Amino acid sequence: MGKKTTIYDIAEKLNITAATVSRALNGNSKISEKTRKLVNDTAKEMNYEQNKLALALKSGKSFNVGVIVPRIDTNFFASVIRGIEDELHPNGYHVIICQTHDQENLEIENINSLLNAQVDGILMSISNSKLETNQHFQKLLKKGVPLIFFDRKKDIAGVSSVTIDDFKGAYEATQHLIDQGCKRIAHYSSNRDILIFKNRYLGYKQAIIDNGLEFDETLVIETISKIIEGRKITKQLLAMKNPPDAIFSVSDFTALGAIEEIKAHGLKIPEDISVVGFSNEPFTRFMELSISSVDQSPIEMGRISAQVFLEEANNSKKIKSEKQVVLSPELIIRDSSLKSKVLVDN
Amino acid sequence: MGKKTTIYDIAEKLNITAATVSRALNGNSKISEKTRKLVNDTAKEMNYEQNKLALALKSGKSFNVGVIVPRIDTNFFASVIRGIEDELHPNGYHVIICQTHDQENLEIENINSLLNAQVDGILMSISNSKLETNQHFQKLLKKGVPLIFFDRKKDIAGVSSVTIDDFKGAYEATQHLIDQGCKRIAHYSSNRDILIFKNRYLGYKQAIIDNGLEFDETLVIETISKIIEGRKITKQLLAMKNPPDAIFSVSDFTALGAIEEIKAHGLKIPEDISVVGFSNEPFTRFMELSISSVDQSPIEMGRISAQVFLEEANNSKKIKSEKQVVLSPELIIRDSSLKSKVLVDN
Repeated sequence: MGKKTTIYDIAEKLNITAATVSRALNGNSKISEKTRKLVNDTAKEMNYEQNKLALALKSGKSFNVGVIVPRIDTNFFASVIRGIEDELHPNGYHVIICQTHDQENLEIENINSLLNAQVDGILMSISNSKLETNQHFQKLLKKGVPLIFFDRKKDIAGVSSVTIDDFKGAYEATQHLIDQGCKRIAHYSSNRDILIFKNRYLGYKQAIIDNGLEFDETLVIETISKIIEGRKITKQLLAMKNPPDAIFSVSDFTALGAIEEIKAHGLKIPEDISVVGFSNEPFTRFMELSISSVDQSPIEMGRISAQVFLEEANNSKKIKSEKQVVLSPELIIRDSSLKSKVLVDN
Repeated sequence: MGKKTTIYDIAEKLNITAATVSRALNGNSKISEKTRKLVNDTAKEMNYEQNKLALALKSGKSFNVGVIVPRIDTNFFASVIRGIEDELHPNGYHVIICQTHDQENLEIENINSLLNAQVDGILMSISNSKLETNQHFQKLLKKGVPLIFFDRKKDIAGVSSVTIDDFKGAYEATQHLIDQGCKRIAHYSSNRDILIFKNRYLGYKQAIIDNGLEFDETLVIETISKIIEGRKITKQLLAMKNPPDAIFSVSDFTALGAIEEIKAHGLKIPEDISVVGFSNEPFTRFMELSISSVDQSPIEMGRISAQVFLEEANNSKKIKSEKQVVLSPELIIRDSSLKSKVLVDN
């Protein structure tokens, strides 16, 4: 093997200064994106291997960013992570992922583990738990490690967030069911201490009220995002004297459980009971009976979260800024809730 | 808040020595599992917060373990990770995850990132690429960081692995299709530089030969694990003069693409064409037409990989040991390949 490529070799080849090469490789925002790309591409061509540990010691940066999600095996979270990676890789950052399985102790321990791993920032969706302490978040803020919430957030001063308009998504899904003639719409909710689930509940409730329908709290059921849970609560609802004629679920997985259970009872979807889920997981599209759902633009959510992190990380003046980005959801109407084909064209 | 709990408080409560508490909290294998559990539970009860960074400095351990997978959003890899976490958490370790998206540069960069994050070991499934260098693996071995391959492995001296018997899984799947009367069985393969795909190909081929059928290399197609790719190659196969009457795919995703394409051509499954996938992804079970597949016991694979890591990490004598664990696959027969119901009871 030949001699190792240095930043001086790259600088010579591109006819720029070594300092510029160094800054470009480190994702310094003062260097134009075009130059950064050129330097990175050239470095790759020349098999330049950055000594990240030396770099970390010199800059005080590890170029590792931690991402914490409740679970990695849903398309939604996997896609957000994909968006984060797409945005951070060209800037020289690597992404390391932890999952909480919605356990509060794991949320705290993951933050500690990532701090020990010297990450430069943490992007996270909080766990679906009734955790009251914010100490673990405050610890990050005190250390000056940027923290950005996506999707599942808490309102904490100094923490930016990227979410979708969950109220709107839920309102539109419920309005669609009402437009299809549904009058008794059940809502499969989740832990409403978490804002996204609270807002979806409020959007659902408001649509019911705005349309002059009766709001029946017994049709609102708090559950967790699992197929088996969807089956269980649907079985209970179908045993009611006056069962619902539609279900709006905050989770595609419980929506799928509902569909399985409704079919098992010999009822027709959407004629007898219409179903709308949330998240637009891929299986909703490729099922024999495709499932209506609310798309959350997860890749864009990830990209924007990463951009917010980069802004904070590159903010040399350490001016505290807090961004609340809210994306717009999109209702995708499919077989499970479409009674009259005419409405598709609206 | 009261005074912070120390290991001495835990020792006093349990009437054991502080040294034992410390060892138990650090997952030392000399302490019985029962005691470790008792200490951990008591520590949790008493809100004991371990100073991991101090611990890391003292022991030279970070108690972080890196897991590298091609992608996080398949049930197979997510389940392996679940198994790893289940085994490592009670031993005081945390799991941080990276994905390669089957890109060789990301495989190398992920290893560097995890090394910079000071992980105590790396458990990984190699990327689906034609990477010829083993330098990044050798780097780990030289630093004495345990490396364990699961599922997708390379044969490297000093590296343990946990895999399933892919040859057997493929042989049994193909034999099942032959038992159903199929005579022209296509094989959707993947990069055969990776042992698991090579072995599945060999198992398929051997079953064809052992049954006296004609082995037709044009029916073996190398593809990548995506629904869209499955559709594409199936479209090509269906345009053949003499199309296949069965497909055995190394991926459930390409199998699903095949099913969509076969249906789009108005052909019947399994009557006209039978399909068997590999991995037993959850969607194979809950599809309207359920898909036959080969189960790989991913949670067990993860658990055993973690056990192999713990053995190496706790091996104070630094005796080099290399373990090759091979699990047995299980063929799950479902609608997509079951022509005669009688055979179910066999």
